[in-house]
Amino acid sequence: MVFLNGEFVEQKHAKISTLDRGFLFGDGVYEVIPVYHGTIFALENHLQRLADNLGHTHIPNPYTHTEYTAIFNTLLEQHSANEHQVIYLQITRGVGEKRQHSFQNLTPTVYIRTDTLHIKNEDTLKQGYQATLQKDIRWHHCNIKSTSLLASVLYTRTAQEMGVEEVILHRNNIITEGGSSNVFIVSNGVVTTPPKSNDILAGITRDMVLKSCEIAGIVHKEENITTQELWNADEVWISSSTREIMPLACIDTTSFDVATPLWQQVYNTFQTLKNV
Amino acid sequence: MVFLNGEFVEQKHAKISTLDRGFLFGDGVYEVIPVYHGTIFALENHLQRLADNLGHTHIPNPYTHTEYTAIFNTLLEQHSANEHQVIYLQITRGVGEKRQHSFQNLTPTVYIRTDTLHIKNEDTLKQGYQATLQKDIRWHHCNIKSTSLLASVLYTRTAQEMGVEEVILHRNNIITEGGSSNVFIVSNGVVTTPPKSNDILAGITRDMVLKSCEIAGIVHKEENITTQELWNADEVWISSSTREIMPLACIDTTSFDVATPLWQQVYNTFQTLKNV
Repeated sequence: MVFLNGEFVEQKHAKISTLDRGFLFGDGVYEVIPVYHGTIFALENHLQRLADNLGHTHIPNPYTHTEYTAIFNTLLEQHSANEHQVIYLQITRGVGEKRQHSFQNLTPTVYIRTDTLHIKNEDTLKQGYQATLQKDIRWHHCNIKSTSLLASVLYTRTAQEMGVEEVILHRNNIITEGGSSNVFIVSNGVVTTPPKSNDILAGITRDMVLKSCEIAGIVHKEENITTQELWNADEVWISSSTREIMPLACIDTTSFDVATPLWQQVYNTFQTLKNV
Repeated sequence: MVFLNGEFVEQKHAKISTLDRGFLFGDGVYEVIPVYHGTIFALENHLQRLADNLGHTHIPNPYTHTEYTAIFNTLLEQHSANEHQVIYLQITRGVGEKRQHSFQNLTPTVYIRTDTLHIKNEDTLKQGYQATLQKDIRWHHCNIKSTSLLASVLYTRTAQEMGVEEVILHRNNIITEGGSSNVFIVSNGVVTTPPKSNDILAGITRDMVLKSCEIAGIVHKEENITTQELWNADEVWISSSTREIMPLACIDTTSFDVATPLWQQVYNTFQTLKNV
């Protein structure tokens, strides 16, 4: 069962018009919200980011905090609280009368579904993952979590073809983020991640990693990272709702330390925060 | 009546799954093909560009040239040959089992519709239009005619808010194109348009304008245009299937000549080519 425009329907009956601007123009925004043991993680932050993105794209916010929560809870009741879930929520500008760029006063389309969340466990994470460095060809508003995601889809394909977990992106030799993650480097015990800007998504997990460093008393900075600094780093991590804090064993042919005591400390603190 | 995945159905029954990657990821490409007095314009060029874009995005091309033509003709039979039409064709990567960036071996979704084409007539065009210069924030594969179009939608809104026809875009003070058009300047009798690159869409109308210059014996170049050259130009035109060759009377507060003998010569030649 999924939620579509005010109704709970079976996924196979969840259909939208071909004139939906989400289909024609990628004209929408989305959120991915983890649910750990039945508890929605950082709900306030996700709904605030959603509201911000709707504002950036001039789409009215169709529901209140209370209404979103009620919908989420109804969907989550389908699952056992023993397994982790993830809420996917997408809002598009709505259905126009014909296919034209311009629009006015449409009713947004709201689609929400829940799925089992497969989190990589600690032992798996500790083995480290592979990545590749690629040029960031995306648009210059990556701070907006929009459904115009063709660039990200093509990066996923590149990663698959190369047999790696993720692409790490740079613009003019300044690291931005991963294809669907934020990036951290560790050099001489200092954790650094690129500052928030129009070029990166302000990941909720990114914020939690910084908070975990804070709590664990580890020096951390939000500063530009050059590709040279990346290559010289002791450790590189990527973060996202599903990857949590994932250490990279190598980017292309350059190796990094994984499962270090520093990573372990941040990872443990993060796990504690998750369960608060 | 529209075409959706092998069937001709009423638009109100044309519905796709919310798991269509066109809806979730803007993961598709499209074409807009004018039909003048019942004759499809530059069909070969449009189908070739479609094939190229499907190749760039690694989506299999579901139909042959003959099959596309048969579908177009069935849809066009609904209309009187006295009015101009436009074919809108969209192909997405298809419907996945769940919402995930990765994909394999999906059946593409094909949606095709026809609408009346409202071309601006010569007298209206001659009055000239207004535009605004804006920074180009789009991705770095604008050569791909993809449905991940949120940036273009936001530019349309900017133009509407400012009460102008189009945005003219620049990257680092080099003109790329309009929000949904190509750009030409005329200086001392020479027509210049930016060269084909990953930053612009290779418009079919753009090619026809260059061909019209060729036939009319007007000097024309495909060269970078700086914002300074734009401001100093005698004339600025934008081209697209629906705008044909549209002279701009002003960009922000800078005025340009409109309906000049040179524009008239290219416009007349273009009209002749259209009817070949």
